[in-house]
Amino acid sequence: MLIEGGRIAQTGPDLPSRPGVPEEDCGGAILLPGLVEAHTHLDKSLWGMGWRPHQAGPSLRDKIDTERRLRQEWNIDPHRQSTRQALLSLGHGSTAIRSHVDVDTETGLAGIEGVARTRSELAGLVDIEIVAFPQSGLMTRPGTLELLDAALRGPADVVGGLDPCGMDADPKGQLDAVFALAEKHGKPIDIHLHEPGELGAFSMEMIIERTCALGMQGRVTVSHAFCLGMPDRDRARALVAQLAEAQIHIATVATPFRPVPLAEDLRAAGVTLCAGSDGIRDTWGPYGNADMLERAMLLGQRNNMRADSDVEHALWCCSWGGAKVMGLEDYGLETGCQADLVLVEAETVAHAVVAHPPRKLVLKAGRIVAREGRSLREAP
Amino acid sequence: MLIEGGRIAQTGPDLPSRPGVPEEDCGGAILLPGLVEAHTHLDKSLWGMGWRPHQAGPSLRDKIDTERRLRQEWNIDPHRQSTRQALLSLGHGSTAIRSHVDVDTETGLAGIEGVARTRSELAGLVDIEIVAFPQSGLMTRPGTLELLDAALRGPADVVGGLDPCGMDADPKGQLDAVFALAEKHGKPIDIHLHEPGELGAFSMEMIIERTCALGMQGRVTVSHAFCLGMPDRDRARALVAQLAEAQIHIATVATPFRPVPLAEDLRAAGVTLCAGSDGIRDTWGPYGNADMLERAMLLGQRNNMRADSDVEHALWCCSWGGAKVMGLEDYGLETGCQADLVLVEAETVAHAVVAHPPRKLVLKAGRIVAREGRSLREAP
Repeated sequence: MLIEGGRIAQTGPDLPSRPGVPEEDCGGAILLPGLVEAHTHLDKSLWGMGWRPHQAGPSLRDKIDTERRLRQEWNIDPHRQSTRQALLSLGHGSTAIRSHVDVDTETGLAGIEGVARTRSELAGLVDIEIVAFPQSGLMTRPGTLELLDAALRGPADVVGGLDPCGMDADPKGQLDAVFALAEKHGKPIDIHLHEPGELGAFSMEMIIERTCALGMQGRVTVSHAFCLGMPDRDRARALVAQLAEAQIHIATVATPFRPVPLAEDLRAAGVTLCAGSDGIRDTWGPYGNADMLERAMLLGQRNNMRADSDVEHALWCCSWGGAKVMGLEDYGLETGCQADLVLVEAETVAHAVVAHPPRKLVLKAGRIVAREGRSLREAP
Repeated sequence: MLIEGGRIAQTGPDLPSRPGVPEEDCGGAILLPGLVEAHTHLDKSLWGMGWRPHQAGPSLRDKIDTERRLRQEWNIDPHRQSTRQALLSLGHGSTAIRSHVDVDTETGLAGIEGVARTRSELAGLVDIEIVAFPQSGLMTRPGTLELLDAALRGPADVVGGLDPCGMDADPKGQLDAVFALAEKHGKPIDIHLHEPGELGAFSMEMIIERTCALGMQGRVTVSHAFCLGMPDRDRARALVAQLAEAQIHIATVATPFRPVPLAEDLRAAGVTLCAGSDGIRDTWGPYGNADMLERAMLLGQRNNMRADSDVEHALWCCSWGGAKVMGLEDYGLETGCQADLVLVEAETVAHAVVAHPPRKLVLKAGRIVAREGRSLREAP
């Protein structure tokens, strides 16, 4: 492969050496496009802060309240922590990240500003997209809407939302507000929807309705979408058909302890599925390592994907799928694409997913940014 | 820690050096007891045979038939493959393995003999317990019972069984035969029970009944036990209470795509839960790496364990729990225990589970058998 001007210029066997163009011997490793971390929370990781015993109780509300408390007590600095996690991701080959970033009346825009600073400092290494995310509620916390509006006038790229019934108990109010913000700023939407079963289906149908009414097809993502894992698979498939028509994307983390959307049903209906790590070692839980090749394995296992072509689809969700959801241009391995590339030592693509060995090399726009699983830029 | 005669002789701060006793600087790493791989299939891994695209269809029957075919075509040699997988396990710190080994009218006792040879060659490195496992059915395949009987007269330690309804369609016939073999040979039982919902509950109650009637309390394990993940949690808990009374153990692999027994319910009732990798990269599926510290993480994630004490319980299942099920004597970290030990660089036990870095050192009966994630004995 010849890379020129940060793009894939030529591929094929026996390309001649070019004077002045440095060469890398890839040693027969497999070349993948840069992985895409399509759902995470860069502002809240505790990575690099030493092990801290988990404190939150089991409810969603308790996790949110515990986080707001510990953010102050432990000085979880969004700029420092997002830099640490983004460089961890880059070491594992993620060259683009969609991050939800908390906006609430206590934190204000500090999270958004911290992650935006990280984004500009890491420009050229990793692309970061910022979702303004009302983690503590939108309708129940007056002042949050104005903060979201300010975030979207500023560095935020995407309008976030969260459980319009379960969190705000005002689905019409919240969703109308979220879609109005999207319309006002001309920005896409990504809504966390943890609500299970028929409650989630109810909220999802309200999202679908607004997406179509406002002509936002292709610009709305529903994250988690646990309701699609409901036992009544016919009902779930009917919802999936509506999602396909509205061109709404689904983001999953392949949650192991909750019903999840079935990759097979989404694929059959033509709904784009992307994936993410969710929170990495934060006050919500201790797990995660930001490795999207391992995430592909977990997604494959969660969906009982065994055939090589199915395992390859799990990788597709963690690369092309995420690129589509984030609207990345010139993504892929074709001539002319931006040279965001990952080298993995494996026999086949399915083997790369299953074994996910440390990435041999990562390139961002043709520049070497990580080797042997670690970004060349040191984390703070 | 001072180790003498393969056992933990003394622990404490500032132990004096002993002339002639070699020392290892553990550099502040965490010491765990040897991990226990309590459910796997050593005879069928393709590890080290190069990547082979997955061929089997989705049904259990198709997986079994495909395996019998490929075992011949690909020359999946039980001795060579079990040696490879056992040494892989040892590198990750497993010092004891319970392996189900296929017995059928095509393979005969070749699997049992191959794994038994591996066991004797690896004596002193890793303990291997052999379950004579009628993978292709017991009642539906005449001649299998006699082969199981021969295996149990020989090297097999445990009587295996498999889905008495779903596989043999003769639960009374199969379970009576299995328990009769156990009684005849004075050996414990480990039954694969994939049957879901009420069908699995029906089979499980027949197992419980026979366990109590024959005084086999504490000597019967049910592997997988997917029926305990049935939606009716009260019904599942009633079954768990019966299991507790019969002192029946549960072995899980924390299957990501199937309902599974809830660790929390088993723990509350006092039922011992152990864990395993199941098949490692075999004709059944491409996943697995034989790392029981990673399995503890997967078990924790599957059961939504977030508090440090819960993550530690996940590790307990992959160590003490397995030791109890296998009946390992002198297991643990107390003075007098056999020095089967694993060193992991981590800040806390929960951190060791979540991060599962390569094992720094593994000891079997006080002897160093692996370093930096690799067994010192080379695999064939």
